[in-house]
Amino acid sequence: MRSCVFACLVVVCYAEMFMVDPGPLYPPTKGEVWPKPQYEEKENILYKFDKAQFNFKVIGETCVILLAAVVRYEKLLHQQQDATRAIRRELLRRNMRRRSRSFVTGLLQDINIELTKPCEAYPHLGMDESYNLTVEAESHLKSASIWGILRGLETFAQLFYPSENYNGLLVNATEIYDFPRYAHRGLMLDTARHYVSVANIKTNLDAMAMNKMNVFHWHIIDDQSFPYQSEAFPELSEKGAYHPTMVYTKADIKEIVEYARDRGIRVIPEIDVPGHTRSWGLAYPQVLTECYNDNKIVGLGPMNPISNFTYKLLEDFLHEVQEWFPDEYYHLGGDEVDLECWASNPYLLDYMLHYNVSSVAEFHTMFMERVLPILATRSQAIVWQEVFDEYVPLPEDSLVQIWKSGWQKEMNNVLESGLGVIFSSEWYLSDVKLGGDWEKFYIFDPRLHVEDKTLLHKVVGGEACMWGEYIDDRNFISRVWPRASGIAERLWSYASLDWDKKDQEIDDMETMRQRIEEHACRMVRRQVPAQPPNGPGFCVA
Amino acid sequence: MRSCVFACLVVVCYAEMFMVDPGPLYPPTKGEVWPKPQYEEKENILYKFDKAQFNFKVIGETCVILLAAVVRYEKLLHQQQDATRAIRRELLRRNMRRRSRSFVTGLLQDINIELTKPCEAYPHLGMDESYNLTVEAESHLKSASIWGILRGLETFAQLFYPSENYNGLLVNATEIYDFPRYAHRGLMLDTARHYVSVANIKTNLDAMAMNKMNVFHWHIIDDQSFPYQSEAFPELSEKGAYHPTMVYTKADIKEIVEYARDRGIRVIPEIDVPGHTRSWGLAYPQVLTECYNDNKIVGLGPMNPISNFTYKLLEDFLHEVQEWFPDEYYHLGGDEVDLECWASNPYLLDYMLHYNVSSVAEFHTMFMERVLPILATRSQAIVWQEVFDEYVPLPEDSLVQIWKSGWQKEMNNVLESGLGVIFSSEWYLSDVKLGGDWEKFYIFDPRLHVEDKTLLHKVVGGEACMWGEYIDDRNFISRVWPRASGIAERLWSYASLDWDKKDQEIDDMETMRQRIEEHACRMVRRQVPAQPPNGPGFCVA
Repeated sequence: MRSCVFACLVVVCYAEMFMVDPGPLYPPTKGEVWPKPQYEEKENILYKFDKAQFNFKVIGETCVILLAAVVRYEKLLHQQQDATRAIRRELLRRNMRRRSRSFVTGLLQDINIELTKPCEAYPHLGMDESYNLTVEAESHLKSASIWGILRGLETFAQLFYPSENYNGLLVNATEIYDFPRYAHRGLMLDTARHYVSVANIKTNLDAMAMNKMNVFHWHIIDDQSFPYQSEAFPELSEKGAYHPTMVYTKADIKEIVEYARDRGIRVIPEIDVPGHTRSWGLAYPQVLTECYNDNKIVGLGPMNPISNFTYKLLEDFLHEVQEWFPDEYYHLGGDEVDLECWASNPYLLDYMLHYNVSSVAEFHTMFMERVLPILATRSQAIVWQEVFDEYVPLPEDSLVQIWKSGWQKEMNNVLESGLGVIFSSEWYLSDVKLGGDWEKFYIFDPRLHVEDKTLLHKVVGGEACMWGEYIDDRNFISRVWPRASGIAERLWSYASLDWDKKDQEIDDMETMRQRIEEHACRMVRRQVPAQPPNGPGFCVA
Repeated sequence: MRSCVFACLVVVCYAEMFMVDPGPLYPPTKGEVWPKPQYEEKENILYKFDKAQFNFKVIGETCVILLAAVVRYEKLLHQQQDATRAIRRELLRRNMRRRSRSFVTGLLQDINIELTKPCEAYPHLGMDESYNLTVEAESHLKSASIWGILRGLETFAQLFYPSENYNGLLVNATEIYDFPRYAHRGLMLDTARHYVSVANIKTNLDAMAMNKMNVFHWHIIDDQSFPYQSEAFPELSEKGAYHPTMVYTKADIKEIVEYARDRGIRVIPEIDVPGHTRSWGLAYPQVLTECYNDNKIVGLGPMNPISNFTYKLLEDFLHEVQEWFPDEYYHLGGDEVDLECWASNPYLLDYMLHYNVSSVAEFHTMFMERVLPILATRSQAIVWQEVFDEYVPLPEDSLVQIWKSGWQKEMNNVLESGLGVIFSSEWYLSDVKLGGDWEKFYIFDPRLHVEDKTLLHKVVGGEACMWGEYIDDRNFISRVWPRASGIAERLWSYASLDWDKKDQEIDDMETMRQRIEEHACRMVRRQVPAQPPNGPGFCVA
């Protein structure tokens, strides 16, 4: 039935322009949810929304997260109604009255929000995000989890669309049962190559919530700058930040973590060690290894793995970070360690002789074996794939983030070792072309490439990665969205691409394009400056 | 001398971070002008700017364009001083006082602006943009042309930079004599695939002025939409615009043309005919050719070249466009005409038989031979290269815009025919990768590839082309800038790349990168959200 409703709309649209066929290339759908719900049935029964007569009613458990969400979504629907009416006035002013061909059955009255279990304090890996939503005169949203309620409210808001005469918002009678395929649906942002403002990080969290992504992986520092403002070691950012104003204070981090929590998004900090650490050296050169060439020091490399000072500083520093970020997981980094620098240092070479260290790579193991216990008091570890590749023993609940090419072999090796996988190799937003590449991200599904199907559940999810070389506050949001939306739907929705239908073609890429066209405009309407996804087109309120 | 001043600054900077070497990858220069002036000598004598004591004095001819420019640049310098002082206050608040190592010789007092000839009404091809600028306590800017004065004021403003302690703005004693290499330095924007707001078009004109670009080539309509709101034919945009609010009215166009004129920028409209015209067909299907397949009409193609209605409509329409755009040149388009549609139409085939037309391509000639005289009453023509390739006879002052690959042969053919060239093939901003590609644009110089050196002057310039498939108000500016700055400097400055030094390597790409890093931040400070050009880095006020 649902496909009928939308096919009809599309036919009307095409009929008018068949002979001429100007833009847009893909006319947006109306009220289609992104990412696509697991089970959804829409009927050709239309309800009208009137903000003066519609109520959000909380009928089960409640908490501040829920009440804040109700306020947000109520405001959003009110704004959308106002924006729609403003277009109508503009059209009338220009004597361009439009007729509405829709037959409206009745008025949308309430939505009853029924949370059946008490709220959890913070989102977490494996949290319940499922919900049931029935839209009719008296609508109903039900979930056993606050996180499911948040996802359901987002879905509810996405079902509305302006009537053809812009007289108001309409919604179809709809039945939805929904839950995610992958538990970990993340976006990694690098705030070290360029600083990104707190305001923009929050806008990005808004966009993630609109796409039902649930992990903000914050690659907060790197070689180039140290914007994390530690209270225990203030000199790190005083000397290592690009500029005194380009820091994240404890208050900023609290604000971001709570803003994310209110949207069901985990914030996982990454303090990348022992490589990618040059910016530490501005305040504490002694934590870095001196790299030698021709018996001369030529620069500073990765952290010094044989210095107790390194570990003492890390212990205090990492405990502070753990305290500021409540998530159970912590990203330790571990990528691209410059082993050649270690191999050039006479003190490390001496150490190898005395302590029977057979290869320089063992320093990576040694380093991680001292750092992992620091974290283990409170967090489980996520690491970049090199930590696994260099045979560092990892606790069994650790997750390995795969980012290099040759990922197929790597993924299966990690799974066979019993560890879990976060997939990123095919989802680098910082690569590739200027537009239209969301499809490339969309059609990739890591679970399709798992050999031992009993291990499918150990691919816990994936992350879109946005490295910071060519983005800052000016272009970050428009570059990420809606490109990351392709990844978001892949990770949430049970699509025709799923592994048991491996040979099936993507049956309806046209529909996807129309749906993401609507979704990009939806983001624009909600103050997320998403770029055009498909080619020629336009967004109105 | 100049190189010494800046080498010293760089050494100080590097010395502090040598061992650690974090970001930014290319520390920005201070007060370096982009595009680089032809002759420039800077001394190690520093003047301080104080807005309370500095005056712009007009000592020669004057006009509204000049007075408006003085107001703009005065405001700009005042804002920059205020922004610099705000940083100082912020640093003091954080107890991060900085010392200034600069020795300031004195206060900058006045700039005497001496225009020696009366203002021209509008900028034009071949206008005089040369100027002399001496910066010392009593500075002097002199030009025989209002356009030279505008360029000189921009240069003057770019010479200032914040002192190390952010106490104010400094400027070096400087002597500049400057003029452009190429007369036509343009940016083409497509507002048909996506609508771009008037506000953003004006921001883009600001950015063009900062880069001394002097032609806004406005590809205003295309197949996908018809945002030009004609007074003679209002139905064209009523039916052909994406949305009633997405149009350019006569008042909008006037506003844009005057805004551009005030910045020494020509606005050249392109109403692309006879192809790329599907959006005309929503209001006037009869101007388009019916394309046939299997004796059935399957759609509408290029304009109908044998219908008198087409030419009558074009005559009235194009005269209106000419009236609204005062430039002497007019872009007629002429690219990618679908000859197959013409070849499928039985009426055209009939016509060929009766009138002895030997090939379908001759319809293109026929079409242009009727349209060119319509324009000739007031304008000279610019056309895309296909018009030349399809042997359409062109008046001798016409310019051919080269955009395809195989441009070397094409360019030399056009030049040998006696026509002038506008070059674009290597300067498509809508192609290629996400960042860092300004260098590819920068190192290309069309005159290097001209075989007959006596025809060099006939390569009048070039244009950066931004097609609209993947840009709209959300990302247009950050995608264009500072990528187009590479092209702007190539077209303005006499660089080491010039043809008589063909074998010389680009001697100092490092310096270019530092200079464009400053220039991108300069644009950001002036409300143009330029993206990062080079990799890791940051901008402060």
